[in-house]
Amino acid sequence: MTTDLPLFASAQADPALDKSQFNTRQDELRTALLRAQYEQLSHGKQSLLIVVAGIDGAGKGATINLINEWMDPRHIRTLAFDRPDTADQARPPMWRYWNALPPKGKTGIVFGSWYSLLLREAARKRPRTARIERLALAIRRFEAMLAAEGTHILKLWFHLSRKAQSERLTRLLSSEQTAWQVTPNDRKVHKKFDRLCLAGSMSIGLTDRAHASWHVVPSADDNLRSIRTAELVLAALACAPPRVQPEPQAQPPARVVVTDRLSLQQPARPTLTKDDYDSQIGVWQGRLAQVVRSDAFKNRSLVLAFEGQDAAGKGGAIRRIANALDARQYEIHQISAPTQNELARPYLWRFWHRLPRHGQVGMFDRSWYGRVLVERVEKFAAPSAWRRAYGEINDFETQLSANGVIVLKFWLAIDADEQLARFKARQHSPFKRFKITPDDWRNREKWDAYVHATNEMFAHTDQPNAPWHVIATNDKRTARLAVLKHVVLALENAC
Amino acid sequence: MTTDLPLFASAQADPALDKSQFNTRQDELRTALLRAQYEQLSHGKQSLLIVVAGIDGAGKGATINLINEWMDPRHIRTLAFDRPDTADQARPPMWRYWNALPPKGKTGIVFGSWYSLLLREAARKRPRTARIERLALAIRRFEAMLAAEGTHILKLWFHLSRKAQSERLTRLLSSEQTAWQVTPNDRKVHKKFDRLCLAGSMSIGLTDRAHASWHVVPSADDNLRSIRTAELVLAALACAPPRVQPEPQAQPPARVVVTDRLSLQQPARPTLTKDDYDSQIGVWQGRLAQVVRSDAFKNRSLVLAFEGQDAAGKGGAIRRIANALDARQYEIHQISAPTQNELARPYLWRFWHRLPRHGQVGMFDRSWYGRVLVERVEKFAAPSAWRRAYGEINDFETQLSANGVIVLKFWLAIDADEQLARFKARQHSPFKRFKITPDDWRNREKWDAYVHATNEMFAHTDQPNAPWHVIATNDKRTARLAVLKHVVLALENAC
Repeated sequence: MTTDLPLFASAQADPALDKSQFNTRQDELRTALLRAQYEQLSHGKQSLLIVVAGIDGAGKGATINLINEWMDPRHIRTLAFDRPDTADQARPPMWRYWNALPPKGKTGIVFGSWYSLLLREAARKRPRTARIERLALAIRRFEAMLAAEGTHILKLWFHLSRKAQSERLTRLLSSEQTAWQVTPNDRKVHKKFDRLCLAGSMSIGLTDRAHASWHVVPSADDNLRSIRTAELVLAALACAPPRVQPEPQAQPPARVVVTDRLSLQQPARPTLTKDDYDSQIGVWQGRLAQVVRSDAFKNRSLVLAFEGQDAAGKGGAIRRIANALDARQYEIHQISAPTQNELARPYLWRFWHRLPRHGQVGMFDRSWYGRVLVERVEKFAAPSAWRRAYGEINDFETQLSANGVIVLKFWLAIDADEQLARFKARQHSPFKRFKITPDDWRNREKWDAYVHATNEMFAHTDQPNAPWHVIATNDKRTARLAVLKHVVLALENAC
Repeated sequence: MTTDLPLFASAQADPALDKSQFNTRQDELRTALLRAQYEQLSHGKQSLLIVVAGIDGAGKGATINLINEWMDPRHIRTLAFDRPDTADQARPPMWRYWNALPPKGKTGIVFGSWYSLLLREAARKRPRTARIERLALAIRRFEAMLAAEGTHILKLWFHLSRKAQSERLTRLLSSEQTAWQVTPNDRKVHKKFDRLCLAGSMSIGLTDRAHASWHVVPSADDNLRSIRTAELVLAALACAPPRVQPEPQAQPPARVVVTDRLSLQQPARPTLTKDDYDSQIGVWQGRLAQVVRSDAFKNRSLVLAFEGQDAAGKGGAIRRIANALDARQYEIHQISAPTQNELARPYLWRFWHRLPRHGQVGMFDRSWYGRVLVERVEKFAAPSAWRRAYGEINDFETQLSANGVIVLKFWLAIDADEQLARFKARQHSPFKRFKITPDDWRNREKWDAYVHATNEMFAHTDQPNAPWHVIATNDKRTARLAVLKHVVLALENAC
């Protein structure tokens, strides 16, 4: 008998709170909640995510109203997710949750959260264990990342006994004024009470962590449910964020990596004549134009990340690809210092936010690798943050490639002499001068530190489904052609 | 013979520019463009929208690459629109264009713009004149609003002769390296050359304004097209924004309006017992729950705007509606001072941005009426801005109701004595104190100015399809019930 699950035992006793106790506690809690909320706002170091789940009819919906009434609603957002719509379906499943993350200082209440798939699987007559393990691990990694990036996560499971659920339905149905609150789904759900309990217990067991802990809220009595909810929210707001327990990394990169890939050979002089280049680039652009217009590509998308030393020719390589695409089919993202808005969210948010939908191409001129390159070398990110980023990035790219996104990463490499020559040429051109800043000269002085960080990046993030291509770019034409070929071949292989 | 249209005569002479002239001009222009772009950025007073249209095969796509290469691409966004997807279809047609507007200081290049519908209609064998007039008027109003709100609009029509278009297709098709550039659509379009010219000429004639002017760019020759485009962009960036020519207002409000609606009678004392209220509110919530779950509502949406004096009970009225809805079906928007991000865009942007999709409910706790209330009284908006806002708001709401959105606007009215009593009660409650600020007391002193502005607002914006309901709220219960009833009856009437 699953209703005996120890996790839910005390909630299933359906405890209650009398009116006078409720009134006293309510006044204290509302005052404390507001104070804690303003504290959170003024610090701006943490956001709070309240994940709402539990037995149907236990008052999950009423919880939104409660929290909004008892706190300052201007700083709370309800993040309610229904079935994925077409925009969601054209991206990895986590896309819509990433997009909705509240900024630091604010609170989000999450309905229909990233637990939906796990709970549905766990509530099946014959749950598939491997799938459950996989879904739970993905959730744990996601939440560990959120927590490490300044999100406090509070997960509430609203619970009551089967008897109380049944009585509630009967009571509501007995009056015209309340019968509408009972949906056809509620009755169906009542029949599945035991399976839901089991699914809840299993999901909670697999995902309960100090930094993202589950709390069972007894919900048969409105007074008690309200007070308990408010107490838990208050505790989450008022306490220091718990230490993050790291999760095992998604998967170690499976490719054998040349440890020092940047010591690659640059061609001594241009290997392609202008005429050869023009004719070849046309042919490959034609193949690119054809494959991105294919039916197969309608269910895929293409993400290209371009990294490399300053002046290595990222912009030029990107434009040669863009030339073969329809303007409505691609977007180029110039990644530089994050905005306030971006800094207030987990690091990868701004890249998730820019993900192309199926049938589309997103090209990143500098990318999510900034964290393990410039942010590392310039010490914008703490060592714990950039070390953790390798796993987060692998996770990110694994989600992309598992969901139809073709991911290619290019490192455009010039040598120091050629860079110097290009810097000087830029400085002498009135309309290229803007491309060169004091930062560029400073970065040159840190050449070795960047080479070191880059090689370490290759070693950690060169995955079969999201490979790095290192391209020697002292000769621009050969380099542009090489990039284009890699893109075309990967697309033709996949579509 | 439509190819004799005077507008296109000089472009159809297919003029060209030789290589050496191109090189000289290019250097000057690139330098000047960059300087003008940085000037625009540092001022942050204007954004630039470049609308790209014209004959197919005239190099519209190449223009994106050109502008991105010749200017600093970090401050340019390509806004390319294909057929509307499901998220677009669930909102008024202009929604996606509003959403994409670049902030001040930045440049947007618009492909597949708000001219698509007009051009398609004008290119029909038998264009429907009335529809063309209507579409053109909507565009003129939209652009006048953008211009008045700090957007510089440059509209480019890329043009070449039928002969040059034909030669271009033949040339491209003659080589394997370039044949891919010719799409099946291009050949179809060639056949329709005359009709496209006529459609372009008609559309340009109807929408050419000093503040949003059209320019025909001769495009048979790549050199000339590039230089001419760059010159036009430079002129738009470098010149002071032209004076806005106002457009006639969408439609005068058709309802007869009581001129002084705020002098309404407040009930002397509560007219509803607690029991009566509880039973009635349940019944009406039930009807609400039913109608928003109906099939008919799947193609409608509901937008509720709540305005009223401070402490008039907006939050309480909104919660009584939210109680009958599924958490995934509604969103409550607390509107207060705009963020930096919002200030950098036209005023109505933040409301368009929050529009619910079909099947959804959006409730605005304070709304787009802020401009003609608080912004007017507190002088945050210039008189020209808030006077213009009446027409812009009527336009906005007309677009909503024309596209399946049910719009209701509530003014919750208390009298000055009741407000004072509520302010004092709030100050004495430890958890309601946060709701009262020095601003609230200051606003009270401006009671008469607000009454004046409010009555003027009613007179200008009380439309049959977006009516104002003025609700006396000294008695909270009666007021909440009245709001709920208006919402339910409007929905039942529409669904």
